[in-house]
Amino acid sequence: MSPITADVTTPQQTSLPPTDAKTRVSDFMKTLQDEICQGLETADGGSTFRQDSWDREEGGGGRSRVIRDGNFLEQGGVNFSEVWGKQLPPSILKQRPEAEGHGFYATGTSMVLHPRNPYVPTVHLNYRYFEAGPVWWFGGGIDLTPYYPFAEDVKQFHQTLKETCDKHHPEYYSVFKPWCDEYFYLKHRQETRGVGGLFFDYQDGTDPLYRGPHADKAAAKYSNQLPPQENRTWEDLFAFVNDCGRAFLTAYLPIVEKRRNTEYEDKQRQFQLYRRGRYVEFNLVYDRGTIFGLQTNGRTESILMSLPPLVRWEYCYDPEPNTPEAELYNTFLKPQDWVNWNV
Amino acid sequence: MSPITADVTTPQQTSLPPTDAKTRVSDFMKTLQDEICQGLETADGGSTFRQDSWDREEGGGGRSRVIRDGNFLEQGGVNFSEVWGKQLPPSILKQRPEAEGHGFYATGTSMVLHPRNPYVPTVHLNYRYFEAGPVWWFGGGIDLTPYYPFAEDVKQFHQTLKETCDKHHPEYYSVFKPWCDEYFYLKHRQETRGVGGLFFDYQDGTDPLYRGPHADKAAAKYSNQLPPQENRTWEDLFAFVNDCGRAFLTAYLPIVEKRRNTEYEDKQRQFQLYRRGRYVEFNLVYDRGTIFGLQTNGRTESILMSLPPLVRWEYCYDPEPNTPEAELYNTFLKPQDWVNWNV
Repeated sequence: MSPITADVTTPQQTSLPPTDAKTRVSDFMKTLQDEICQGLETADGGSTFRQDSWDREEGGGGRSRVIRDGNFLEQGGVNFSEVWGKQLPPSILKQRPEAEGHGFYATGTSMVLHPRNPYVPTVHLNYRYFEAGPVWWFGGGIDLTPYYPFAEDVKQFHQTLKETCDKHHPEYYSVFKPWCDEYFYLKHRQETRGVGGLFFDYQDGTDPLYRGPHADKAAAKYSNQLPPQENRTWEDLFAFVNDCGRAFLTAYLPIVEKRRNTEYEDKQRQFQLYRRGRYVEFNLVYDRGTIFGLQTNGRTESILMSLPPLVRWEYCYDPEPNTPEAELYNTFLKPQDWVNWNV
Repeated sequence: MSPITADVTTPQQTSLPPTDAKTRVSDFMKTLQDEICQGLETADGGSTFRQDSWDREEGGGGRSRVIRDGNFLEQGGVNFSEVWGKQLPPSILKQRPEAEGHGFYATGTSMVLHPRNPYVPTVHLNYRYFEAGPVWWFGGGIDLTPYYPFAEDVKQFHQTLKETCDKHHPEYYSVFKPWCDEYFYLKHRQETRGVGGLFFDYQDGTDPLYRGPHADKAAAKYSNQLPPQENRTWEDLFAFVNDCGRAFLTAYLPIVEKRRNTEYEDKQRQFQLYRRGRYVEFNLVYDRGTIFGLQTNGRTESILMSLPPLVRWEYCYDPEPNTPEAELYNTFLKPQDWVNWNV
């Protein structure tokens, strides 16, 4: 038994979800998809989303929306899905052994945007909700991946996220921000995917440490720091996820407006295409949702619409010292205290 | 216990490797790298290989060679490596439990070529040799990934491979060809990676079925068909791998010569870039060597030099019926009996 589990003897009780929990969350996830798509179409001004509705043989379905060749968006995808089945996959059951032998329900919204201008960052958002027998939880987050970053933009982005967190729990930002740095990390490159944001998983209001030796290490490490049962009922968490989802346009669109008309040359474009390769590497090698989806008969086109429209790989590329490209590597692709950054 | 293992009670004995086995194989792997690089430089006529030698902290090293912006090669990488360490990774130990607690030695040559002209296929080759305590084995193969294929080229490629196999064992081609179709398969796309070639693993001259319930399913399925101990000593297998490696230029260069000057337009180039996405998906999601390398602190740039220099993804792309693009999907991305194909 590992030291971190040794002093935990009884599971915390979670609060019970309301009887209409699934409907309320899936309604919210659809509304979030609608609001994000409308906000992005207005901001883009040049293209609109195409929607594909799809059914899942084992139960459920979704609506995938893709925008292409817009004014600022080279490509963007916003997915809603609501699925159910007889059994969670082994990777999740390992984290939630209580769900063994029970059916499951999952709903969520996910988004990845690939802007054309290298001065506008790529951004990802995903919020999700699970129920399976006696257990339920919220998960998700948001993270920003700039190519030519501005510290003031990154600070503003993180400040918006922190304000959203602070409205719900004084410890959320200080827990979910480093969790994001840790999750969106490319071990084989020794780089963060970008400047981070928020990430959390298995949030049910209890201290996940009781999960014992099978617990997700990051969950144990960070959730451990949250006082259990303090403003952390189902309703509290749902309200928190609502606010997180709705903070996206506020956090991101000001950056788009400031940078979308910045002039760039082929050198900047080539660097953006090269850095997009890291997005592909992360999503195909590490991302839980992508790998799970591909291995379990998900709708491939919806899962892989997160991949960039055009990507480069270049053997042994290294940025020249004292260039903006080097600054990205040296400063922005390492975890930093962005809300207190001096700009 | 699964049915396929039920009638196997005693392990077959392997023949012993000669005392200078490691040196002989690694010398061959280096020579193979040299011969392939020389052959490709001569054929390309426009660019040469750059070499990077590298050391591995835990033991061993390699020499990576990359060619770029050539006449027919947009990018190509040919790697040699020779590494050793205290313990094989768990994924391999599961296949070879006898190696538990022993150090290991591995050497091999691997290659991926990305031609510029969409009428010239991408090709991959890898041959490798392992020793670990009481066990040793050869593995590897070669496979061809065309964008605009010609059945006569594919037939010629497979005929060359079959002739090479037939010189060593009458059953090799009929076992290693379908094994290749099965290994280079993208489940989430329901497509083969290309038109296949040869693939084998854990070849030590015995019937691998004795590996029991932990055995690699494909190994059990295909190697099972090989009579054990019949022309399958260490020397026999080494001679076979020698001939396989040396068959590459004979199998591939005639296709290059026939197709490298075929005229193409942007439509064909865009389709090639799109299909290259499948190569990325296979290598990052399924390929044993890539995933193992990334997760175990290999030299990232050498591992990922298999990725194409430029790639596209396009949401919900489907080829139009009765086009060459549709023919690729309908005929060439399914396992076929190429040596008996009517052209």
